[in-house]
This record gives sequence, C-alpha cells and structure tokens, in this order.
Amino acid sequence: MTTDKGENTSNTVTVYSPATVANMTCGFDVLGFALDGPFDKMVITKTERKGVEIINKDDYNLPTKPEDNIIGVALLSMLKQVDEEIGFKVESTKIIKPGSGIGSSAASAAGAVVGANNLLNNRFSQDELMEFALDGEEIASKSRHADNVAPCLYGGISLIRSVEPIDVVRIPAPILHVTIVHPQIEVKTSESRKLLGDTVPLKDAVTQWGNVGSLIAGLYTSNYDLIGRSLVDVVVEPFRKKLIPMFDEIKAASMIAGSLGGGISGSGPSVFMLSKDAVTAKKIESAIKEVYKNVDFEFNTHTTTISNQGVKLEY
Amino acid sequence: MTTDKGENTSNTVTVYSPATVANMTCGFDVLGFALDGPFDKMVITKTERKGVEIINKDDYNLPTKPEDNIIGVALLSMLKQVDEEIGFKVESTKIIKPGSGIGSSAASAAGAVVGANNLLNNRFSQDELMEFALDGEEIASKSRHADNVAPCLYGGISLIRSVEPIDVVRIPAPILHVTIVHPQIEVKTSESRKLLGDTVPLKDAVTQWGNVGSLIAGLYTSNYDLIGRSLVDVVVEPFRKKLIPMFDEIKAASMIAGSLGGGISGSGPSVFMLSKDAVTAKKIESAIKEVYKNVDFEFNTHTTTISNQGVKLEY
Repeated sequence: MTTDKGENTSNTVTVYSPATVANMTCGFDVLGFALDGPFDKMVITKTERKGVEIINKDDYNLPTKPEDNIIGVALLSMLKQVDEEIGFKVESTKIIKPGSGIGSSAASAAGAVVGANNLLNNRFSQDELMEFALDGEEIASKSRHADNVAPCLYGGISLIRSVEPIDVVRIPAPILHVTIVHPQIEVKTSESRKLLGDTVPLKDAVTQWGNVGSLIAGLYTSNYDLIGRSLVDVVVEPFRKKLIPMFDEIKAASMIAGSLGGGISGSGPSVFMLSKDAVTAKKIESAIKEVYKNVDFEFNTHTTTISNQGVKLEY
Repeated sequence: MTTDKGENTSNTVTVYSPATVANMTCGFDVLGFALDGPFDKMVITKTERKGVEIINKDDYNLPTKPEDNIIGVALLSMLKQVDEEIGFKVESTKIIKPGSGIGSSAASAAGAVVGANNLLNNRFSQDELMEFALDGEEIASKSRHADNVAPCLYGGISLIRSVEPIDVVRIPAPILHVTIVHPQIEVKTSESRKLLGDTVPLKDAVTQWGNVGSLIAGLYTSNYDLIGRSLVDVVVEPFRKKLIPMFDEIKAASMIAGSLGGGISGSGPSVFMLSKDAVTAKKIESAIKEVYKNVDFEFNTHTTTISNQGVKLEY
C-alpha cells in the first residue's frame, strides 16, 4: 500500500477511503476530521470508453447509474476535464453505512477522485480533486459542504474557511482517540438542517466563535484541557440532540468516563466522543453501551483515532 | 523600567498602560491585541489610609470620586480583598483619549491593578487582577468585556474564550504593524451595540467562526496570507461601519497600500489596519490621510506594532 504520490504503472488501483466526522462540536460546518477506520473500499480501473461504470459489491443497493451515484457524479465531473477517450470502472464495497453520519458519501466521492487521479498520473491538483468530490457530495447531502470531503482527502483535522472559493486549512492534531456510537435510526440531513432555523442569537454566536478559536489554539499547542473546555456547542447541539436517543445521557456518561468532549457526528445519528488515550476511549464505549443497554433499536460502537492519513491507495 | 515580576521596595510605582484594539475583525468580543503605544501613565503610591485617592494630571476632567472612576472602581475592588489598613493614591496622566476606541478605559483599569499589585508584592494572581480590572472596565463600557483588558494585562493577542468564568488564551503573534486612524467624532458604545440587533444569520455566523478559526491558525503559523484572508467580518462591520466616516474608502485605500486587513477598533471610531512591515504601515497611513484630506472633522493617525508586552512598570 502506498499513497497517491507514487507512480502507478497499472490500470487498476485499490482505494481505502476513511470515515470522517464533520461538525466538530463548536465547529459546525467548518471543522471535520478523518478516522482511522472504517474504510470504504473501491477497485478502480481505467477503461478505454468515456464514462463511468459502477459495480456494487455490497448489499446497499445504491444506484449504479453514474448520474445518480456519488462516485459516478464525482468521476463524471473529473472526466469533463479530460480530453482523452477514457473512463473508469469502479467496483465499490461500502463499509461505511450510508446515513450513519460519519461521512459515507464523502468517502465515496473523495476516494473515487483520488483513485482515478492516480490512474491519470496525478494530473489534477488537490483543489481540483476537492471540487470534483464536492460535486459528488452535493448530490447526497444537497449542500456543497466540505467538512467531510476535506479531512477524507487530507487526513487529520480540516478547517473549512470557505467553500466558494474553496479554502481549507489543515490543522495539526495531537493524538486523539475517538469513540463512535451509531444508533441505527434514520436521521435525514435535510430534516436535521430544518431544526436549526436561519438565525442564531448574537450572544451564542460569539460564544461559539470563541470556542472555535480556542479549540484551534488547543490543537496547535496540544493543550488537552483547552481542547476539552472548547468542545462546547451552544448553537447546533441544543436543537439537533433531540434527534439522537438519550443524547444527554450518552454525553454525560462519556464525560464521567473521562472524555474531553464530543457531540453529534455530522447531522447524526452517530455521536463521537474524544479522549486522550485508548483506555479512556474503551471506557467511554462501555459507558455508552451501559446507557443503551435497554434500548429498542440496534446500535453499534467502535473506538478509533483521528488519523493523519486520508484516502489510501494500494497497487 | 522593569516588569511586575521584580520586587519593588518603595511605596511608589510608575505604570505605563498600553492602548489596545478589541474586536479584531472577525473576532468580535473575543479577540484583542496590545499596541506598542500610546500609553497611559499612572504614578501609584501605597498609603496608610484605606481607600483610593485620584489626582488627574491631564485635561480630561474625569471624575475623581473613586466610585465613579475606572481606576477607582478597579482598585476598590482589589482593596476589598485586602485586610490591612492601606490604600492607594493615583496620579493619572491619560494619554489615550477616552472614547477613541483603543481601550482607554481598559488601560486605566488594567494599569491600576498591575501597579497596585506590585506595591502589594504581587499577592494577586493574573486571574484575580483580571476580575478587578473588569470591575473597572464595566463602569465605563456597561458590559463585562475582556478583549481590551486581557491584552492590556498580558500584551500580544488575547482570545477570550469565556468571560464568566474568565478564560483567556494568549495567542502568539508574528510581527504585525498597525496603522490607527482616529476620526475625532463621538461614537457611544451603547449606540454602537444597538446597531447590531440580537440575532445573526446562521450562514454569516458560520462564515465568521470559520474566519476566527483560520485567523488563529494563521497566527500560530505566521502565515500572513491566511491571516489576511481571515480578516473578514461579515457580522458586525456591515452595520457599524456606518458610524465611521468614509470607512469603505479608508479600508479600500489601505488594502491597495498593502494592508493585510483590519476594521473598526472596539466600537470605534478608531480604525486599525494591519501590515507586515513598517514601510507598508506608513504607506497605509498616507493613504488614509489622502482619503480624509477634505473632511470637516479633526482626525489623527499613528503607526505602531502589536506589542508582546502589556502594562509596564518603572520603579
């Protein structure tokens, strides 16, 4: 396995595209990070026929018509910039469940464009790949948001200063462990958006941008106490948490177990909680399982870390 | 001249307290920085009579009754925590014009408490000094805001994550030059507040906290381009700029002269523009003078730098 910096002399590449967490507590719509798993897998082959062919190797029954598929839209967007008569065949094995709130659509979009670019000898820049991937992301989430796509492409923590034009700042992160719980209920991003309203109290907005600023400072200085104090969301979480069963209880139990803080992953329903070490991440996982022990829905949990690597390639 | 770390064996200290800029563009209510001048001067003497005596050595006719005076309120707040029968006499020479928008009241409050603490062998912590100074600041600005007091105390750039409880993050700054213009018109902080309304569009709030985050990142990495791109205020400036004569023209001329960006200092009427070097700061000053050449009000300009030192003591 290597990164896309290397030269691939074959016509096929295997892509591993990580799950990501957008809306990092106070950083609604601007901060996201890459996880060290789960990963979607795609095998992409360069073909001599213009266009995209998608073969699903999983049970999600996603559309195979390229115009209706995230991978397809992202690759068609790229192919518009390619003069040669070439195309791509993609065998897609989705591991990141669509709708789980940990960047399933971004993993498809970002993974596809990085893999395809590798087969084109990396002719496109990172900014160009970002735009192609955002075209794909847009059909899934109905909004051009980059806080999953950027960390999926780059790894680590991304700050999206602006989407149009795209301006992404890569933020260095100290070691951070992540506990994810995915209650298997359906949360539609569009409904989740509606809960927010169009305006926020100025007072709360000030609190939020104070926390965004201090979170960035905490990340640059590996100041875990400051990171913890900054992981507060007074704007979005108070409304959206209603969508997540027992959100307050999960969070309280996680904090008691030693979490630095956390929140709703993307627009949910997954919830992430950050911690300094693997032992604490596991304790948090147990605490969450305890909270959910009698619930009447399926859920799963896992622990991982913020990964400094985004999409990985193997060839 | 030395800092307040040293031991002062006399009963008198001379304090130089710097001007500061609050509301650093996108950082409304959370970011402020200290200037390398102008400085207020205070000569503070420890006396054997409980209470505060204020003697004004300037022409501003500020109240001398301690309860009505910023210096007085800050020192009375400190003296409440002092058991001994002591007090302070303060000879105050204000250089920073009250109402100019570059932290005149904070300079009084912060300077007084740092000087007095020196005469008490530094018995109070920085956080305690902050609270005393905020008590003083509060009577002037009718709000407990720390984005002038904190940089005045600490120097450099301060991020106010929270006021209650106080949580200030000191942000390292690369060399930044500052051009200040002070149109001598009256802007009341309370009126300036009213212009804002109580709510802000969520979309604008997101833009703002993206910029706060990237400004902090730019400061940590001395990335002047990023600092410049982040110095955008979509929430406050569009409303408050109406209070500043020819604000758009000043800013446009400054940007053409090479400024990284800037904005209204505090709630105005002063305006600050940042730049990378002294030559550019002077060019900006000239450009602003040119814009203002035919105005019917007095104004003054000066160039300085962001100073990493706050209140200075001499004894």
